Amino acid sequence: MFPHIFRYEISPHISVYLECKGVLHSSQSRFQKIEVVESLDFGRMLVLDGVINLTERDEFVYHEMLVHVPLFSHPDPLKILIVGGGDGGTAREVLKHEEIDRIRQVEIDREVIAVSKKYFPSLGIALDHPKVNVLLTDAIQYVREIEETFDIILVDSTDPVIEQSEGLFSVPFYRDCLNALTEQGILAAQVGDISFETNLVSAVFNKLKEVFPVVRIYLAPIPSYTLVPYSFAFCSKTIHPEMGLGLSRFGGSFQTRYYNPQIHQAAFVLPEHLRKEFEK
Amino acid sequence: MFPHIFRYEISPHISVYLECKGVLHSSQSRFQKIEVVESLDFGRMLVLDGVINLTERDEFVYHEMLVHVPLFSHPDPLKILIVGGGDGGTAREVLKHEEIDRIRQVEIDREVIAVSKKYFPSLGIALDHPKVNVLLTDAIQYVREIEETFDIILVDSTDPVIEQSEGLFSVPFYRDCLNALTEQGILAAQVGDISFETNLVSAVFNKLKEVFPVVRIYLAPIPSYTLVPYSFAFCSKTIHPEMGLGLSRFGGSFQTRYYNPQIHQAAFVLPEHLRKEFEK
Repeated sequence: MFPHIFRYEISPHISVYLECKGVLHSSQSRFQKIEVVESLDFGRMLVLDGVINLTERDEFVYHEMLVHVPLFSHPDPLKILIVGGGDGGTAREVLKHEEIDRIRQVEIDREVIAVSKKYFPSLGIALDHPKVNVLLTDAIQYVREIEETFDIILVDSTDPVIEQSEGLFSVPFYRDCLNALTEQGILAAQVGDISFETNLVSAVFNKLKEVFPVVRIYLAPIPSYTLVPYSFAFCSKTIHPEMGLGLSRFGGSFQTRYYNPQIHQAAFVLPEHLRKEFEK
Repeated sequence: MFPHIFRYEISPHISVYLECKGVLHSSQSRFQKIEVVESLDFGRMLVLDGVINLTERDEFVYHEMLVHVPLFSHPDPLKILIVGGGDGGTAREVLKHEEIDRIRQVEIDREVIAVSKKYFPSLGIALDHPKVNVLLTDAIQYVREIEETFDIILVDSTDPVIEQSEGLFSVPFYRDCLNALTEQGILAAQVGDISFETNLVSAVFNKLKEVFPVVRIYLAPIPSYTLVPYSFAFCSKTIHPEMGLGLSRFGGSFQTRYYNPQIHQAAFVLPEHLRKEFEK
């Protein structure tokens, strides 16, 4: 009945099979293969080099947690840098924070932006907002050379296993980010699957610890990525997330589907076996 | 290379495929088909009527959360009733609480106990402990007729979709449990997949609300069950889990791999879209 099957690997011995209605788009950009697949239970999915980048069903969890955790930890975030994030979901969430002044977004692949605007318009449209300034260039080189500073840097990249993103999970890149942060600045990044790719997550965590005084792991379930809560990193010079320095701005007309101030705190609580490894 | 595949359904359109080395045991008891399957990434798995009941990889999450959340919410739990739980994992965790006086366990299927003792000895052995008294009978009838009371009732059943467990997710059974609880008594139960079976979880939640003054949902990731954190119910006459009335007993030689006092609190924090539905 639904002959298309999309398969993604959790580990070499575990795969998830999704029934799909079909492939809406398939192209090869200068950087990657870009597909849009219509699945039954996850809705439309953006697939980059065969890996699910986002789905209509659960992208809100990923984008809200990547954005609101650092922004509501900061007393007064004005200037935001988004690394990657060509689909526009991260910018959409940042724009909910009315106090921000401007967003600089550095995306290497213009075709991801075009595909998102066509197939995920509620995400892609954020990139047309007057506060958003998109640069089509390599983020690694960009942060190496910039002289301005940001209150928040959001690393919304593909996974570190993909060659073009490897540089975004390296000590030199993190050092450049640290230099591009204000004194109260915060970097947040997606890190990976803490249960089925523990070694990968540990490696990224240790690189971040080499550079940032404060490094904390936080978790949120993103079923189209993996079977267990997915991990993010919160990094800063001085601010700890539990301080919740911006939480008084939450409420009123601020709309979320996953994030709330209790989730802000609970996301940093690690299971005992992970606490021993990641809170040393 | 590993020709055996074990498949489990997350939804009608999503399945997980596990590579397995083989089937170690297969039998049909009076009540259900019992299999033990050796998988590569989840280790040994107990499979009842085709559904994964526990795996070596993640049973600790399920058993610790079913047991320690209610027990550490109670100021002085002495008498414990376990409904189901023939594998022994729940009893194993209860026995870590040295203050408990005795465990009454009511399991309908003696063959589950025998299979667990053979293939999962570190779980099954708990049932031989002198504090544990196993009754091989129908728990629904048992709670209808008992006159004694318990401090804690743990419903460690198979899913409500399976015919023989349906009665364990019914208002009459919950009323009988309420009557069998002391004034400070707590019932905890596994409820289901809150994201891919929301209607089922809502139905169970509403039945519990008909009976218990306090009903709270809490979450923990059990990847061999589903893609998102799995849900449990905490029910009582007066006690709320956040009070943590027994948490001062945690620490010292009390060993856990998932549970800790911070998890105790964080597990009750629901994402915004679930909070609206389950904290009304």
